Amino acid sequence: MIQERLSKLRASMKAAGIDCYLIPTSDYHDSEYVSGFFMVRKYFSGFTGSAGTLVVSGKEAALFTDGRYFIQAAKELSGTEIQLMKIGEPGVPTVKQYLARIMGEGETLGFDGRVVKADDGTGYEETLSQKHCRIIWNRDLAEEIWEDRPALPHNPVFILEERYSGEGASQKIGRVREKMKQEGADVHILTSLDDIAWLLNIRGSDVESCPVVLSYMILTQDQALLFAEETDPGEDVWTQELRRYLKENQVELRPYDSFYSYAAQISGGKALLSKGRVNYRLLKELSGNLEVIDRPNPTSLMKAVKNPTEMENLRKAHLWDALAVTRFMYWLKKNLGKLPITEVSAIEYLEELRRKCEAYREPSFATICAYGANGALAHYSARKEACAEIKPGSLLVVDSGGHYLEGSTDITRTFALGEISREMKEHFTLVLRAMLTLKNTRFLYGCRGVNLDIRAREVLWEKGLDYKHGTGHGVGYLLSVHEGPNSFRWKLQPDYQENAVLEEGMVTTDEPGLYIEGSHGIRIENELLCRKGEANEYGQFMYFEDLTCVPIDLDGVEVSLLEETDRKRLNAYHREVFERISPYFEGEELDWLRNATREI
Amino acid sequence: MIQERLSKLRASMKAAGIDCYLIPTSDYHDSEYVSGFFMVRKYFSGFTGSAGTLVVSGKEAALFTDGRYFIQAAKELSGTEIQLMKIGEPGVPTVKQYLARIMGEGETLGFDGRVVKADDGTGYEETLSQKHCRIIWNRDLAEEIWEDRPALPHNPVFILEERYSGEGASQKIGRVREKMKQEGADVHILTSLDDIAWLLNIRGSDVESCPVVLSYMILTQDQALLFAEETDPGEDVWTQELRRYLKENQVELRPYDSFYSYAAQISGGKALLSKGRVNYRLLKELSGNLEVIDRPNPTSLMKAVKNPTEMENLRKAHLWDALAVTRFMYWLKKNLGKLPITEVSAIEYLEELRRKCEAYREPSFATICAYGANGALAHYSARKEACAEIKPGSLLVVDSGGHYLEGSTDITRTFALGEISREMKEHFTLVLRAMLTLKNTRFLYGCRGVNLDIRAREVLWEKGLDYKHGTGHGVGYLLSVHEGPNSFRWKLQPDYQENAVLEEGMVTTDEPGLYIEGSHGIRIENELLCRKGEANEYGQFMYFEDLTCVPIDLDGVEVSLLEETDRKRLNAYHREVFERISPYFEGEELDWLRNATREI
Repeated sequence: MIQERLSKLRASMKAAGIDCYLIPTSDYHDSEYVSGFFMVRKYFSGFTGSAGTLVVSGKEAALFTDGRYFIQAAKELSGTEIQLMKIGEPGVPTVKQYLARIMGEGETLGFDGRVVKADDGTGYEETLSQKHCRIIWNRDLAEEIWEDRPALPHNPVFILEERYSGEGASQKIGRVREKMKQEGADVHILTSLDDIAWLLNIRGSDVESCPVVLSYMILTQDQALLFAEETDPGEDVWTQELRRYLKENQVELRPYDSFYSYAAQISGGKALLSKGRVNYRLLKELSGNLEVIDRPNPTSLMKAVKNPTEMENLRKAHLWDALAVTRFMYWLKKNLGKLPITEVSAIEYLEELRRKCEAYREPSFATICAYGANGALAHYSARKEACAEIKPGSLLVVDSGGHYLEGSTDITRTFALGEISREMKEHFTLVLRAMLTLKNTRFLYGCRGVNLDIRAREVLWEKGLDYKHGTGHGVGYLLSVHEGPNSFRWKLQPDYQENAVLEEGMVTTDEPGLYIEGSHGIRIENELLCRKGEANEYGQFMYFEDLTCVPIDLDGVEVSLLEETDRKRLNAYHREVFERISPYFEGEELDWLRNATREI
Repeated sequence: MIQERLSKLRASMKAAGIDCYLIPTSDYHDSEYVSGFFMVRKYFSGFTGSAGTLVVSGKEAALFTDGRYFIQAAKELSGTEIQLMKIGEPGVPTVKQYLARIMGEGETLGFDGRVVKADDGTGYEETLSQKHCRIIWNRDLAEEIWEDRPALPHNPVFILEERYSGEGASQKIGRVREKMKQEGADVHILTSLDDIAWLLNIRGSDVESCPVVLSYMILTQDQALLFAEETDPGEDVWTQELRRYLKENQVELRPYDSFYSYAAQISGGKALLSKGRVNYRLLKELSGNLEVIDRPNPTSLMKAVKNPTEMENLRKAHLWDALAVTRFMYWLKKNLGKLPITEVSAIEYLEELRRKCEAYREPSFATICAYGANGALAHYSARKEACAEIKPGSLLVVDSGGHYLEGSTDITRTFALGEISREMKEHFTLVLRAMLTLKNTRFLYGCRGVNLDIRAREVLWEKGLDYKHGTGHGVGYLLSVHEGPNSFRWKLQPDYQENAVLEEGMVTTDEPGLYIEGSHGIRIENELLCRKGEANEYGQFMYFEDLTCVPIDLDGVEVSLLEETDRKRLNAYHREVFERISPYFEGEELDWLRNATREI
């Protein structure tokens, strides 16, 4: 079947004068997840992983993917002609190097420029210019080959009322226009879906786990154009109420399809856009007509700084979420070794508990539930047909979150089940100390994540240990659970604006971990709300408020390894957890909660 | 007298067609200190501080200086027409803003471009282009006015033998040439004196506290030109031995004076230079003829990474230095309240002790010795005619260092004299904890100072306190005591290469402080040598070796405020100090040392 599809692709390539065709995994908006319509790489290769690039030439075909998928990809590609390129392994070329190798003098590379990042496309251009190659960047060859291709998602849209958003769309647009003036921009082009949803206070469900609406936006001082209308009127999701709402906010609705032709005819002046966020086709359509001011989208920082309404709502969302996760912990501890529990049934039960809250909408990402050695894989995904049974004697990592109208949550707890080894307890205690140290940091305004990351890592580094992921990421408000520009990372990026100064209202996760291959994994994660503290002659001091209020499993803690300060911090946190959530518990459950948050 | 000099200056300006003349405080090499020849700003204004810019127009004159000098400058300028501009005070313009205000359409600004940084000159250019002003950048008007101007310093030069430098000049030049190839540069121009001295393994005494040789260098793959010869042969410091040495290393000696005319005639190709380090005149002489590759000087990183010979020598230099400072501490404690001691006599006694070491050459900077409230001024400088008496009841900060053939040192100790207040002890203990925490940090290779700075500051930030200076700076090897590109600072600079990855062999100071206006100051400083530790699956771990081995004054420590970890760290440090320096003490002094480094 794959062979047949590749043959058709090669025929189309020939007809279009394309020698080599490239298919990455993306939608037109560089979203974190892609819907069925965009799974072109999967269609032509059979590889089902979430990341990978397929390159097909007349002679050969190669799929590039990363370490998470080496085993799965090898299995799924076997029996096809497609070569597996293990990114990062010694001797394996990058996509760019591979193109430079296989393409001949004066040949033509083709791709759909809407699913290729601007930076990547520019990179291919530079590399291939040495061989005088041409690029055709406006052909989606799947269009003519893939017969039962799913439709573009245009799901129902709803307005996020001001009691949830805290600020009207007109006001937000006004703030962006102010910023455009400061940057000297005549037009601002926005293609990232979370930015658009935030700006207009609209939400949908066009991307998995991210309640956004498929759309583009073009903003000038006079006009606000939203390109989101489905061309087929039968599919129209833009109700009269929504249309009225847009009109009230002076936003004009245009067909989604008409975006590129509109963009191509804007001319003169300066366009503010973030090159790192837009696709290659947009950049090509604009080139020559407009001068680009390459700056982060103003909405990026604005939406990261939660307003007082959002902050207050987030506290509610986290309370509800805490009730579900704490009840899950109670259930797990009580039924362990009695009921049969697997990673997948545990996920289902946790979801059932979250659903009991009326305000709950959906998971904010696919729950990671990893028992024993599975926990050592930071991105483990349990599948019904091959998942572990949860039983006494090891650790269970549960990383999950929910979308509520009052905001999104992300929490990880590691549970100690039955008797665990001394080493597991030591590691659990270290990770806990790392998490507690960072969240209790008091710092001067002006600090970035790059300054603070070591507050978590120092505890592990002292022992010659580390975790190979960031310590934390920003979290959206009923939007993407991974959101910039705030984060806790120690490695400095060349573009240091990616690592924003921590502002009051920013939400960042604090999630150190430890992963021992073949044995166990630990991750403990709270969400932290950045707050202003005392201001004095030295400056404005800042601190973190805990949004997450779920007990830390004391069964995992080796108290003798806690320093006095850690002990105080843990007890203070558990006091707060008990105060906030105990009113919702009673009887046996309440007794259990009292013990689970006891002073140590 | 000042009025008369300003009149002459205005007459020269008129003759040269200059409407406004600018005199900063610098030499041709942007050195930290300037010698008599370069004190033009002092000559025309009467202001003797180490930093300031004088701007003179037909109508007015203004002197710009920073917070350290507001009081002194006001006093020294009184009675002249010169207006004092307090940099950073509300409503006070910057030099650029001031020029924009006072200069009329089409007027001419003049300065000696050799003492103006390239960046500053470019800034003036941009600002004044709006008024169509012209800049004359090659006139040093002091030449014709200042009759008894000191000569340019051309002091004796000596070769730093390989047993001190650890690497021959030819090898170093070879490494720079390698780097030039990598950067695609045809020529490399070096004007910073410490870089040249390091590269050629030569030292002199042309800048105060920095044993360098007044010179420029131009390097290609075939030629190495050193512009350092005095035109007047009577003054020649280049002995036959030195000339032979340069020849052996294929370095050609040229007259110091001929540098700009030589630079102006190089044409074609690309020149590697660091725009932030060169002066404006050089940039103008090159412009049009060469394409500039603006990158840090390769020598900057190379000289920061000390080689094994330098590391071994540094341990010796620090041992000798420790003997002097520890004996000073003994003398101070023993004679306090018995002998009359002032800040200045204490400085003299410490210098006397350092001089007892044969390898000692000179102070690496002017010693700061600040008693009581004087200690709250981070840059206090005691003067004989107005210095404090040192007596029981407060703290004494002593920040000093020495140049040895085996390297340079920089150490601060704060001494508790007699009974001090509870608050002073609390503050002393906090600063000590900050110093100990940073120096005991274990970290993964790849960290920069910006990641680690918080390890010192966290202790103070937790209490709502801070110090308004960096936590530490790099230290040169018988060169400048303030040397990049390594440092401990938390504020991210736009040019993040300024904040280098910490490499094995880098030396950085660890010197947190606390300054309570009108009462007392504390600073405790060790020099840390960055070392490789264990390498494992997580990466290469790094740690710091203490170069400084001088007791911390236990009289200042409130033991009850130390955490268990701090106590262990302090005891471990004192054990090491005792082991290293006790062989050089005996009798009563040895008993005292044993007590001064006792376990607590």
